[in-house]
Amino acid sequence: MSVQDTEFFRPLFTALAANDDSQIQIAASTFNAADLADFIEAHPEADTGIRLLNALPKEQGGKVLGYIGPTPQTLIAQQLPTRSLTELVTAMPSDERADFFQLLDEQRQHSLFQSLASKEREDLRRLASFEEGTAGALMSSDYAMINTGVTASAAIDLLRKTAPDKETIYHAYVVDEDHTLLGAVSLRNLITATPSASVNDLIATGLVTANTHTPQEEVARLISRYDLLALPIVDHDNRLVGIVTYDDAMDAAEAEATEDMHKGATVGKLTGTLRDASPFSLYRSRVQWLVILVFANIFTGAGIAYFEGIISEHIALLFFMPLLVASAGNAGAQSATLMVRGMATGDVTVTDWGRLLGKETLVATGLGLTMAAAVMVVGLLRAGPEIATVVAVTMIVVVMVGSLIGMLLPFLLDKLKFDPATASTPLITTIADVSGVLIYFSIATALLDIS
Amino acid sequence: MSVQDTEFFRPLFTALAANDDSQIQIAASTFNAADLADFIEAHPEADTGIRLLNALPKEQGGKVLGYIGPTPQTLIAQQLPTRSLTELVTAMPSDERADFFQLLDEQRQHSLFQSLASKEREDLRRLASFEEGTAGALMSSDYAMINTGVTASAAIDLLRKTAPDKETIYHAYVVDEDHTLLGAVSLRNLITATPSASVNDLIATGLVTANTHTPQEEVARLISRYDLLALPIVDHDNRLVGIVTYDDAMDAAEAEATEDMHKGATVGKLTGTLRDASPFSLYRSRVQWLVILVFANIFTGAGIAYFEGIISEHIALLFFMPLLVASAGNAGAQSATLMVRGMATGDVTVTDWGRLLGKETLVATGLGLTMAAAVMVVGLLRAGPEIATVVAVTMIVVVMVGSLIGMLLPFLLDKLKFDPATASTPLITTIADVSGVLIYFSIATALLDIS
Repeated sequence: MSVQDTEFFRPLFTALAANDDSQIQIAASTFNAADLADFIEAHPEADTGIRLLNALPKEQGGKVLGYIGPTPQTLIAQQLPTRSLTELVTAMPSDERADFFQLLDEQRQHSLFQSLASKEREDLRRLASFEEGTAGALMSSDYAMINTGVTASAAIDLLRKTAPDKETIYHAYVVDEDHTLLGAVSLRNLITATPSASVNDLIATGLVTANTHTPQEEVARLISRYDLLALPIVDHDNRLVGIVTYDDAMDAAEAEATEDMHKGATVGKLTGTLRDASPFSLYRSRVQWLVILVFANIFTGAGIAYFEGIISEHIALLFFMPLLVASAGNAGAQSATLMVRGMATGDVTVTDWGRLLGKETLVATGLGLTMAAAVMVVGLLRAGPEIATVVAVTMIVVVMVGSLIGMLLPFLLDKLKFDPATASTPLITTIADVSGVLIYFSIATALLDIS
Repeated sequence: MSVQDTEFFRPLFTALAANDDSQIQIAASTFNAADLADFIEAHPEADTGIRLLNALPKEQGGKVLGYIGPTPQTLIAQQLPTRSLTELVTAMPSDERADFFQLLDEQRQHSLFQSLASKEREDLRRLASFEEGTAGALMSSDYAMINTGVTASAAIDLLRKTAPDKETIYHAYVVDEDHTLLGAVSLRNLITATPSASVNDLIATGLVTANTHTPQEEVARLISRYDLLALPIVDHDNRLVGIVTYDDAMDAAEAEATEDMHKGATVGKLTGTLRDASPFSLYRSRVQWLVILVFANIFTGAGIAYFEGIISEHIALLFFMPLLVASAGNAGAQSATLMVRGMATGDVTVTDWGRLLGKETLVATGLGLTMAAAVMVVGLLRAGPEIATVVAVTMIVVVMVGSLIGMLLPFLLDKLKFDPATASTPLITTIADVSGVLIYFSIATALLDIS
């Protein structure tokens, strides 16, 4: 913890030193839950962080616990007696609670489960049953619900009473007796309506929903596209089962973008942040693809071995080899990155591929010609007109081939039900390396033998 | 537009064919603004999209216009008479209005400016004055404001009356007579409070603010960290000047992630989506770095030329060159990507660099040893023990060098006030290529000369 942080948290340190719960509560009340979580993460020892967590009103404590990262959450769970833990867990938002529960060992899960009230227990069982990465795993059951037919003023009264337990009261969902979702009504519409108006007449049009199996990326995309505060999640009978709030969707979208970037550099899934990750987990996330690529690169070596004859005859060809294969790889990395990100944000769909292929061919031709002109100059200065021609022609071909591989591979992976982000830069570069070497020396063999 | 979309928008097509404004309005009322914007984008001709936009109530029309992308927005501005355009622009959210205004040519800006009411004119002038990429350029002036000392019930009444013009009424800002920001009060707290309570007693603690110069990424990070609905923006005297809402922050964060990914593959800034970008703008965004990298790669060629002697003596060394330089590049790309993304999300700060350097050295040593073992086997099979040893030793060194370059370059760029994302994969790969070639043949010269 830096000096700056020590200054920022001074009131908390003072109150904790005085060892007076009410003073701690007053000091804590001037901080945000996210900041208190940071403080506790930085002081996991029982006499500082844990003591703060214990002193907080349970409502606030539950919220703070929800903001703490998985590793320190586990530490805290080990240090707290079941009784305090149960109170905190009961106060946690339902979606955070389900995630926290997954972290505990079996014995701890069992004892916590026994001590929870039946409502929380049922809720936990249900939320824990959804697959990681789906709307079900992200959703919260703390939504505000109104029965069909009540008046606006009755609805406001209900929201006022139930506010403390809900993720948001700014949107309430109108359901019939079977819990079927009829629509959503905003608090904005409720307070601007005539008090006697029926909520059914205030239902917003164009309600967007998702189901429990919808992938998280799609949930984030819907919330972002329609600027929603929360997305209602329904089961196969259109019964409301939960909501995903914009803040959880934002976190999921950020995690998704991070994962896509890491995949783009063949880094596997990391638990926690880069700062907290252990050297071994970093090693594990990186080693697999590096070793795979070592074996893939052996083909490039084999390609060079095959053309040993022409190389020893024209050793100057060798000087341009790194440049040509790097150019193919770079052009391929550009088009793959554009395509992978476009597919992730929903800007590009598989139905666009024909039109994009035409455009990419045009762009790649332009890029190839420009780079051929640049390299022609260098070739003339260093190796004479014959080799300069070989290098320039090769440049055009390899930039086009690299770009097209970079564009097509993400589509192909998507068609085969793989994540397009697997079309990572190192993979594209390796493919471009092998094809670049083969194309270069084939063109050299053809052109230099004739002359 | 696909068959699916035609089916989805059937009620609109029917109403537009009937050419009856009230029927068009009824059909449009069942769609979201974002969907209507898509429809208009797909039909920019005057007889479909524009006719729909004209038929919508101005309130809804302004909202829909805000969802339309820059290129079709410009087209629409050209086709609408100033009078209709003025009405639509007046109804637009203030932040969208300022962005839209920037797109128009000078003459059109002038005529639109003249026809706007003085309130909108003043607002536009102010919002347009902030630099692109700052909180000022992202903020809206449609925030809900309450004077200090009023009661909760008076505040609710005020919010109810002003609701239609505000981005959000779920948070209202309490200001004194000088417009100094005293705090924020949530509608949730207002409706659950005693009606006679003073808003000053309901102010939420730990108010997070930013100023007009705060970078957009920082704004998005604050909103995401504290799960805010809106972030109040103040000037240097702590006077409230605007708010940035979570949905605009989400869009900014997404755009930022896209820009970082594109930078990671040396793709320059694109206006609009990949699907809409013209071949020339794609060419322009990609060519610059490719040509720079062509010249950078000439050093690799020069390195090979320098070691021509040892290469022609041991031509088998050549087979392993692509593999070794690719491994250095891949390891470097991994660590650069981890670092760049960590810095973008705020997980990693410059103060962490010492600790991360130690961890990276450990991880890189592990990776180097693993890859050396893999390549040793291949080397023994294809080139005998002497070259296998050279290749294995080189692998350890280049993986470590590549990883450390990948880790340090983003920090260095940040220190020099450049965007760390400029430490792109192709740049790291190129540096790794040059150093890989030099290290490989230096080690070969040393070990093979002795033996």
